[in-house]
Amino acid sequence: MDCIFCKIVEGTVPAKKVYENEHVLAFRDIEPIAPVHILIIPKKHIESMNAVDGDDWGLIAEIHRAAQHIAKQEGVAESGYRLVNNCGRDAGQAVYHIHYHLLAGEKLGWAKTN
Amino acid sequence: MDCIFCKIVEGTVPAKKVYENEHVLAFRDIEPIAPVHILIIPKKHIESMNAVDGDDWGLIAEIHRAAQHIAKQEGVAESGYRLVNNCGRDAGQAVYHIHYHLLAGEKLGWAKTN
Repeated sequence: MDCIFCKIVEGTVPAKKVYENEHVLAFRDIEPIAPVHILIIPKKHIESMNAVDGDDWGLIAEIHRAAQHIAKQEGVAESGYRLVNNCGRDAGQAVYHIHYHLLAGEKLGWAKTN
Repeated sequence: MDCIFCKIVEGTVPAKKVYENEHVLAFRDIEPIAPVHILIIPKKHIESMNAVDGDDWGLIAEIHRAAQHIAKQEGVAESGYRLVNNCGRDAGQAVYHIHYHLLAGEKLGWAKTN
């Protein structure tokens, strides 16, 4: 499987990991757009939100449980954080292994962004 | 409870509903920032991502299952969509009843936004 995130899960591509459990891995984005910019992924390869089905919904919950934990770990739980999932072309999904961005560490504007 | 989203759930404040099931309600944002801008909320009052606990994680999964469904219903599943949860001050959380923004209908830029 030629998926960069699967390779990070396997350990054949390096990443700055910040959290890991049985189902979920989180690591720092290599092109951060905020002081805290972490990607949270399921270890299982799921292409995008459109492909989530069956038991995988539990993984979506696990990702968010990890996000809550990571926000505390990074010291941004109280100041605030944004979670973003991009699905497909119009959202600019860059890697087709479902992932959530955790953005924090400064006042984040609110717009669809350009 | 003086929560605008709880009042929408109760039906005492109007909203343009697009989807509803036992646990989840979705309606159009009154200040859309994209051609499709829908808010998806749990009917249960949960303040923010920081407050999710126990069985509520299942509601997070339910919200995403609804999002996937709504994207199809709105005809944007294939073109793409973005899901955003803002938690707390730095993310600009406007209503303290947890909600996800579904943004779609045009090419969405990618930045923290200003």
